[in-house]
Amino acid sequence: MIPILSVVGRSNSGKTTLLEKLIRELAGRGRRVGTVKHHHHHGPVTVDVPGKDSWRHRQAGACAVALLSPETMFVVRDSGKGLSLDALAHLDLRGVDLILTEGFKSGAMPKIEVNRRAQQVPLLCGPGDHLVAVVSDWDTGARVPHFGLEAVAPLADFVEEGYLHGADRSQLEVLVAGRRLVLDAEAETVLMRVVRSLLGGSGYSSTGPSIELRIPGQEP
Amino acid sequence: MIPILSVVGRSNSGKTTLLEKLIRELAGRGRRVGTVKHHHHHGPVTVDVPGKDSWRHRQAGACAVALLSPETMFVVRDSGKGLSLDALAHLDLRGVDLILTEGFKSGAMPKIEVNRRAQQVPLLCGPGDHLVAVVSDWDTGARVPHFGLEAVAPLADFVEEGYLHGADRSQLEVLVAGRRLVLDAEAETVLMRVVRSLLGGSGYSSTGPSIELRIPGQEP
Repeated sequence: MIPILSVVGRSNSGKTTLLEKLIRELAGRGRRVGTVKHHHHHGPVTVDVPGKDSWRHRQAGACAVALLSPETMFVVRDSGKGLSLDALAHLDLRGVDLILTEGFKSGAMPKIEVNRRAQQVPLLCGPGDHLVAVVSDWDTGARVPHFGLEAVAPLADFVEEGYLHGADRSQLEVLVAGRRLVLDAEAETVLMRVVRSLLGGSGYSSTGPSIELRIPGQEP
Repeated sequence: MIPILSVVGRSNSGKTTLLEKLIRELAGRGRRVGTVKHHHHHGPVTVDVPGKDSWRHRQAGACAVALLSPETMFVVRDSGKGLSLDALAHLDLRGVDLILTEGFKSGAMPKIEVNRRAQQVPLLCGPGDHLVAVVSDWDTGARVPHFGLEAVAPLADFVEEGYLHGADRSQLEVLVAGRRLVLDAEAETVLMRVVRSLLGGSGYSSTGPSIELRIPGQEP
């Protein structure tokens, strides 16, 4: 499972600036980082791309439009109500080592809060919000590690040690009704071997090519 | 499996214009259409979105960036060498009824070729190219149905009858090493029931919530 960490904070606390620095630091260490941000305004997100044909497809009524270039893939889709953060992470951001979200305060993922003294506001995260670190220029009193606003390398160390060491990207990922399911190691192995043997016809093996399987929801 | 049809033709034959009309017609009939286009130019695809924070994430080195708004989801990712059209269709354009690609001449998907008399060029598609229809203002001689340049409704009928009727979206989809695997109905049922019973613990049932399963490739 790809670890997800959320950077939260009040308006103008500096979330995007911190994220930029953290992404740059982690990318420099060879980590593949994905990010997710909410865009709260209603109305269509207008996107301007060179080679406007994809945009013409979208304007004509396509629900999903992809543009594939040698280096970059670009997708615009209707989001709909059914899109969970887990599905977004598992499917749309596949292949990264870590996902950093900006401003997703709800949900059980661990949170890093940015809080600047000049704003003179208490922390946004309270008990039960899964706060794991504070980035601040003062002691907010929260009983979690504090990092200075410019202490990006120590923060990246904290992220790597806590969320990237031991992350086993070789294991399978399962979403049931759009939510991650955490299996124990034995159940994972059985599931992988059974699916491989049903698909590959090569016996009950744990090795083989990548497999993506989608079973649509079905009412009884 | 989501059906994939490719609209092909020489430069300036009118592919995008035809696609716009076809998308509009099919969307008007309630079909959810996805599209894929190649952007052949090298270099990064620059994307301009309101709320530039996602773009700042990307500039800072994120491999994948998602922007989620109430109506629209937007993703930019490194495409890399491993991205197959099947994976794009299965994962990135999930949830559509039909995928129309623009300009993918290789591959075994059925092709609709646009060819205008004024261009005075022969068809791009030859034997073995899986040509299924021609949209043209002259008789190109190809032994497939021909549609006039403005005959969008008959073309949409052709697409619906040939590729959307009987398309059973309730069935599972499988990619092995990024390629679609077509299973017979019995194998599909067994696989669905086995996976459901392993995950759900609710017996050998064909009904239940949606399941997404990813097994990474593993060397022996």
